[in-house]
Amino acid sequence: MEKGGITYPEGFRASGIHCGIKSERDNDVSLIFSENPCIAAGTFTTNKFRSYSLLWTLRNINNEIQAVLMNSGNANTCNGKENYKYTSLLAEELSATLGIKSSSVLIASTGIIGKPLPYEKILSSIPHLKETLSHGNHIEAAKGIMTTDTFPKEFQLDTGIRGRHREVCIGGMTKGAGMINPCMATMLGFITTDAVIERESLQAALKQSVEDSFNMVTVDNDMSTNDMVVCLANGRAGNKRIRVGTDEYEKFLASLKSVCINLAKMIASDGEGAGKLIEVRVKGGWCKRDAKRVAKKVAGSNLVKSTVYGCWPNWGRILASAGSSSARIDTGQIDVSLCGTRVYDGNPVKHDEAKLRKRMGKKEIVIEIDLKKGDFSATAWGCDLTEKYVKINKE
Amino acid sequence: MEKGGITYPEGFRASGIHCGIKSERDNDVSLIFSENPCIAAGTFTTNKFRSYSLLWTLRNINNEIQAVLMNSGNANTCNGKENYKYTSLLAEELSATLGIKSSSVLIASTGIIGKPLPYEKILSSIPHLKETLSHGNHIEAAKGIMTTDTFPKEFQLDTGIRGRHREVCIGGMTKGAGMINPCMATMLGFITTDAVIERESLQAALKQSVEDSFNMVTVDNDMSTNDMVVCLANGRAGNKRIRVGTDEYEKFLASLKSVCINLAKMIASDGEGAGKLIEVRVKGGWCKRDAKRVAKKVAGSNLVKSTVYGCWPNWGRILASAGSSSARIDTGQIDVSLCGTRVYDGNPVKHDEAKLRKRMGKKEIVIEIDLKKGDFSATAWGCDLTEKYVKINKE
Repeated sequence: MEKGGITYPEGFRASGIHCGIKSERDNDVSLIFSENPCIAAGTFTTNKFRSYSLLWTLRNINNEIQAVLMNSGNANTCNGKENYKYTSLLAEELSATLGIKSSSVLIASTGIIGKPLPYEKILSSIPHLKETLSHGNHIEAAKGIMTTDTFPKEFQLDTGIRGRHREVCIGGMTKGAGMINPCMATMLGFITTDAVIERESLQAALKQSVEDSFNMVTVDNDMSTNDMVVCLANGRAGNKRIRVGTDEYEKFLASLKSVCINLAKMIASDGEGAGKLIEVRVKGGWCKRDAKRVAKKVAGSNLVKSTVYGCWPNWGRILASAGSSSARIDTGQIDVSLCGTRVYDGNPVKHDEAKLRKRMGKKEIVIEIDLKKGDFSATAWGCDLTEKYVKINKE
Repeated sequence: MEKGGITYPEGFRASGIHCGIKSERDNDVSLIFSENPCIAAGTFTTNKFRSYSLLWTLRNINNEIQAVLMNSGNANTCNGKENYKYTSLLAEELSATLGIKSSSVLIASTGIIGKPLPYEKILSSIPHLKETLSHGNHIEAAKGIMTTDTFPKEFQLDTGIRGRHREVCIGGMTKGAGMINPCMATMLGFITTDAVIERESLQAALKQSVEDSFNMVTVDNDMSTNDMVVCLANGRAGNKRIRVGTDEYEKFLASLKSVCINLAKMIASDGEGAGKLIEVRVKGGWCKRDAKRVAKKVAGSNLVKSTVYGCWPNWGRILASAGSSSARIDTGQIDVSLCGTRVYDGNPVKHDEAKLRKRMGKKEIVIEIDLKKGDFSATAWGCDLTEKYVKINKE
């Protein structure tokens, strides 16, 4: 099998298997392994309740990292303090098996909240996870973190940055679907690169990339206790060390952002029960935050989402939702287009409703808003709200 | 027919008829008339896009008021500036018919955004609205403001405040259903009283009552362009003028709040497609805002709402949703009860899940949260999220 996703950059291997947390035969535990130590960067949920797995990772993120252990089916959150001990036992067992330090292991979990971590099942899966580590098993790893996702989500690219040994590459995988919210909600993202890069620069690049991608995805308005995006850099490309303020940094940032945006859009389009991707492009914001506020408010509005689902060009809901954000808006001076058709320019714009309805039948719906207040832009992604979403979440 | 709702206090009459805005034979235009001039108080949407009807009302709310004209089926919002002129023509025609000044007319609209106001239909209904004014037609008026509501919403009570002529009474009607959000969203409320009360005191009492009632209702997370709650006081009870700081004021405030809470709960229980009322009681907040934040976040969470719909005691979603608010929360020191069963006290609490599931089958679901940070409380109301909500809103 070919390299791809998280094993696309040099020196990374991965595996994913079924250990018994989920009742189906689906993968529920995954491993990323780097042949040499990495520097790591991460962004984490701001929810006050946090997974014990996430707490372990937060504690170790500044160490040299060589492995990431992930499970789905159990969030390891609000399930009693003893589960932090079990989490650290998992890190110890994994590190002993791999011949590394337990402090170079990161852990991530996703699934139901409030249930004891089935740590014995994960523990006994560790030898098999190690044995199956390979370049080709990236897709098995991507499957192992899925919950209500309907497809594994991977992306990779070449950055164009030349290294001594090879061109710098970035790969990634993610899971999302339910409970995806503005500020990092039940969303796991793992990104690998063979770049040589300064720790602070990697953290800065990841933070900015996540803000413009994963954090601009909204499926519902809840925020998970487990979200994290972690990026590992193992330096195998042998490029000149990347630092903030250089051309190479800008190149790396653009590539990392592109990986994150591509993964984020997969999450949005795979929202629970979703049939369509909604992309809300806002320009003319008085400040960046204003542009983001409007984009996220519109992309996250239940009414806009159900309008898109029903293919009904009820653009008044777009305006009502934009107007309810705290952004600076001049209601007599705002342009709104839906699927390329201008519907409002401070007053309603006459248009062919039948034609617009037809266009709304497409899989990707673009809403464009020009606030005409300044030079700042932002894009947010969401999905339509369907009966299926409700059905999935009541069960 | 008996007095009730908005005609319960002395000196108010009402009517509601079908004028042709809605295609069904349902009432779509209503009128409240006071036999003598009233002082008025109001709270209004904070959405930046505002209905022309609302703009007219905002302009006139400080005048002596004698009539309120309402329509459903058209929001009179984002439909072109010429519709403000049509709105004022309606006020002029109504005032001429009733023999009052046009500046003593308030106007409110609810319905679809972005469509021209069918003002000729409303105009030609005015004589009939006047002819049918009566004490008994309060229910017709309540029907005339319904949109996706499944039942008219009215409430009235005696305040216990003695007047020269009679005991002070308060009555009210409201409409809600879809698009109901934290800060006054497509929600109209009309309250009448025969109290003699100072203008500033009436405004203060209404503001506080609305904050603890209508503003604590959340059906989805959108905010309407048309929301308003208006209170008219015609002084017919002949009581001693009520002023802030007196015992009588406290009595009046408690009664007004009770009317508002009763109406607000009707809105929540009649959320689009809803089958259940969710009441979230938060205590122990570090400040009032913290308690409100948590209550509204939990009551408005799509995941909590779908959990309630499915009768599945997935209390982790309550914690995750509370934790994602910006309130001060100590995750190791928070109590959560669901339908009277303690499920979390800083750690999961063992309980009979089958019994809890059964209790969740009831029509009213109470979630209690003790933040143990201070002395502030708040209650919010919401409803479950059902396939029917999605179906209604895609159409």
